Amino acid sequence: MQLFIGNQNYSTWSLRAWLIFAQNDLNVEVVKLKLFSEGFYQSLAEVTPTAKVPALIDVEVVVWDSLAILEYVNEAYLEGKAWPRSPKDRAKARAVSAEMHSGFFSLRNELPMNCRASRKVELSQEALNDIARIDAIWSEQMALYPDGWLFGEWSIADAMYAPVALRMQTYGIPLSAQAKAYQQRVLNSQAIQRWLAEASLETDIVVEDEAGEPV
Amino acid sequence: MQLFIGNQNYSTWSLRAWLIFAQNDLNVEVVKLKLFSEGFYQSLAEVTPTAKVPALIDVEVVVWDSLAILEYVNEAYLEGKAWPRSPKDRAKARAVSAEMHSGFFSLRNELPMNCRASRKVELSQEALNDIARIDAIWSEQMALYPDGWLFGEWSIADAMYAPVALRMQTYGIPLSAQAKAYQQRVLNSQAIQRWLAEASLETDIVVEDEAGEPV
Ligand SMILES: N[C@@H](CCC(=O)N[C@@H](CS)C(=O)NCC(=O)O)C(=O)O
Ligand SMILES: N[C@@H](CCC(=O)N[C@@H](CS)C(=O)NCC(=O)O)C(=O)O
Repeated sequence: MQLFIGNQNYSTWSLRAWLIFAQNDLNVEVVKLKLFSEGFYQSLAEVTPTAKVPALIDVEVVVWDSLAILEYVNEAYLEGKAWPRSPKDRAKARAVSAEMHSGFFSLRNELPMNCRASRKVELSQEALNDIARIDAIWSEQMALYPDGWLFGEWSIADAMYAPVALRMQTYGIPLSAQAKAYQQRVLNSQAIQRWLAEASLETDIVVEDEAGEPV
Repeated sequence: MQLFIGNQNYSTWSLRAWLIFAQNDLNVEVVKLKLFSEGFYQSLAEVTPTAKVPALIDVEVVVWDSLAILEYVNEAYLEGKAWPRSPKDRAKARAVSAEMHSGFFSLRNELPMNCRASRKVELSQEALNDIARIDAIWSEQMALYPDGWLFGEWSIADAMYAPVALRMQTYGIPLSAQAKAYQQRVLNSQAIQRWLAEASLETDIVVEDEAGEPV
C-alpha cells in the first residue's frame, strides 16, 4: 500500500490521511512529493485523476481525497473502529469532519499550515468566526470526554482537526481552556511528534503558504 | 425524522440529502425554510450549530452537512447499500463524492443552481476545467456502467452530482455524448422530476443565486 503525500511542513490534507496509519500502527509506504514541483504532477498523473495529495494505492484500489481515504482505511483495515461506535456520536463525528472537509476557508487561507514557523497575522472577521466555531467544537467535546480525544477514543474527527491544532500553534491563536487542553493533547501525541520531526528535516519553501510576520 | 432543507429552486446541498430519501422510498418529514430569511436562522438555531441546510433530526441524533447525512442514512436505514458493494467501486464512489463535497468552487460560484431558469453565462477557465472534470467522471462511469447510475446501482455519488446535472441544463452547458446520457438519466428520474415540480411552486428570488442572461 502506498500513500502519496506532500511536504509535511505544509500539507494539511496529507497529514489527515497519514494520521490514520500512524495512529493505528498500520503499515504503509509513504511517498513524499514536493508540492507544486514538476515531479509532483508527473508522479500523480500516473496515479490519480485530480493531481492532488493525499492519494492512496492499495493494489487495485485507488483513492484520492483525504476523507475518502480515511473512510476507506477505516473500513478495509480497522473494522470501522475509527468512527465512534454509538450512532449518535458517529453521526456527530461525521458532521464535524464533513464541516472541516467543506468549509473553514478563511482559516485555511489566512493561517496556512507551516509547522516549523512562529508567526503573527491580522485576521479577518470570517477567520475569527472560523476559530470560534472550532473552539466551540473542541470545548464541547472536551466537556463530554475530558480525558480523551474528541469522541473519547481516537477517531477520524481527530485526524480532520489535527492540522488546525498546528496552525493555532504557529500563529499563537488564543483558545478557551478546554480547547487549549485538546490542542495540547494533539500536539503532544506520538504521531504528531513524529510528523513534526519529519517535517523539520525539510528545507523547501512554498511561498504561497508563508503568511504573517515572524515573532 | 425531520429533514430541514432550503428553497428547492436553489439549494444544491439540500437536494443531495433529500435524494437519498426520495430515491429509496424512505419516510421523512421535510421542513422547508426560506434561505437567508430570519425564520431560516431562527429555526436552525434550535437545531444545528452551523445554521445551514440540510440538517437531519432523528430522535436524539442530529446531523448537519449533506455528506454526513448521506452516510448516516445509508448506515441507519439502508444497510450500507447506498455505496457500491465492491471495495474498489466503493472507494472510487467515495473519492468522487468527497471531491464534489470539497471542490468545484468555480462551477458552484459561476453556475448557481436555479432550477426554473434558462440562462447563458460567460465562464472562467477554472469553471471550464471543473466542467471538463465532471464530464470525465460521468463519461468514464458510463463506459463502465452503460445502462446504470454512476456505479450501476444508484449510490450516494449520484446524489452528490445531481445538482450539477440541473446546473448544466439551466446554463445549456455542452457535454460529451456519454456525459449527456448520464445527465438525461438524472433529469428524467422520478425523484428529480418530483423535486422540480415542488421547486416550480416557489416564487422567492434569491438574488445571489441569479446569474447570467435569460435565453
Ligand atoms: N479535497 C482534497 C484536497 C487536496 C488538496 O488540495 N491537496 C493539495 C495539497 S494540501 C494539493 O495537492 N495541491 C496541489 C494542486 O492543487 O495543484 C482532499 O481532501 O484530499
Ligand atoms: N458543507 C455543507 C454546506 C451547506 C450549505 O452551505 N448550505 C447553504 C444552502 S445550499 C446554506 O444553508 N446557507 C446559509 C448560510 O450560509 O447562511 C453541506 O454539505 O451540507
